[in-house]
Amino acid sequence: MQELKDRIVKEGKVLPGNIIKVDGFLNHRIDTGLMDRIAVEFGKHFNMDDVTMILTAEASGIALAAICAQHFGKSMIFAKKAKSDNIEGGLYQSDIFSYTYKKKVTLLVSKEWLSKDDKVLIIDDFMANGEAIRGLCEIVENAGASLVGIGCAVEKGFQGGGDRLRAAGVNLKSLAIIEKAEPGDIVFRDEED
Amino acid sequence: MQELKDRIVKEGKVLPGNIIKVDGFLNHRIDTGLMDRIAVEFGKHFNMDDVTMILTAEASGIALAAICAQHFGKSMIFAKKAKSDNIEGGLYQSDIFSYTYKKKVTLLVSKEWLSKDDKVLIIDDFMANGEAIRGLCEIVENAGASLVGIGCAVEKGFQGGGDRLRAAGVNLKSLAIIEKAEPGDIVFRDEED
Repeated sequence: MQELKDRIVKEGKVLPGNIIKVDGFLNHRIDTGLMDRIAVEFGKHFNMDDVTMILTAEASGIALAAICAQHFGKSMIFAKKAKSDNIEGGLYQSDIFSYTYKKKVTLLVSKEWLSKDDKVLIIDDFMANGEAIRGLCEIVENAGASLVGIGCAVEKGFQGGGDRLRAAGVNLKSLAIIEKAEPGDIVFRDEED
Repeated sequence: MQELKDRIVKEGKVLPGNIIKVDGFLNHRIDTGLMDRIAVEFGKHFNMDDVTMILTAEASGIALAAICAQHFGKSMIFAKKAKSDNIEGGLYQSDIFSYTYKKKVTLLVSKEWLSKDDKVLIIDDFMANGEAIRGLCEIVENAGASLVGIGCAVEKGFQGGGDRLRAAGVNLKSLAIIEKAEPGDIVFRDEED
């Protein structure tokens, strides 16, 4: 998606440790118009008529997932990252390693709101090692639901998380795949569409 | 907002400790169509032309705030609840007590993305003691920005957070104010509009 790539080049910052900071429009301050145009792009790649539920993980995926879900008239659900007293009863859970927080995190989704009849599209703002996405896939599997696909806004291609999913046959669409990120030099993977 | 009140009565669960669980449509699984209709209601109460930024706190406020912001063509920003390595530089911060997690939490907003020129509408899904909202107001004040108002979907009126804000002269609109919550008996405050 050219607009997204242009924004990454223009406004993204590369920090030590290959961290690409796009918190001015994607995951802290949110450019909601851009999120809606990202939804349109996902709509070209996934058959939204098939989807019954959009799933993401808190917190930074929620804004994009909510706007995508609203655009296509779907419900969305977000996996929580810590057990609070307000979640009761049965939970689907998956342990992942958060590279952002450098610790194990458990993703939790209430069994009440995700069922084997759901056809799930996972949406996330960012994929690096793919741990959060792996956890979300595990939750879909635990629920006995079908995975329609995974839509990511930005993928750090050089960290391999996305390619592992593609090799496993998952329908993954990332709208900007970054192959190299150095200050002043961000290179994207060529894409067929 | 009658639709919201009806959903609370029909689908809400009252748990011990006066916890009102509405996680089937508001803050875990999200009914995005309802969120958009809530946005329309807020649009009747606040002059959206005045607003430059919608502010909320992670995680459960993000879906509603994002859909409201998208509806009115605004940017939104969410206060983060823990310091991650991906936030650098100056931060506005406010310490609040989280009754959900029973501990002190620090709300953080990057100084880069909120300025004294912003006219801020705070949006949140739920207000009980009003600690999160108080923290968000403090961040708006620290930024030197103007507070246009506060829009809440559900307020637990009997916990007093909302009334303290109204007494302080804040333009607060809650679309469903719960005055009493016992299993099978949820009573709303009468409202003039």
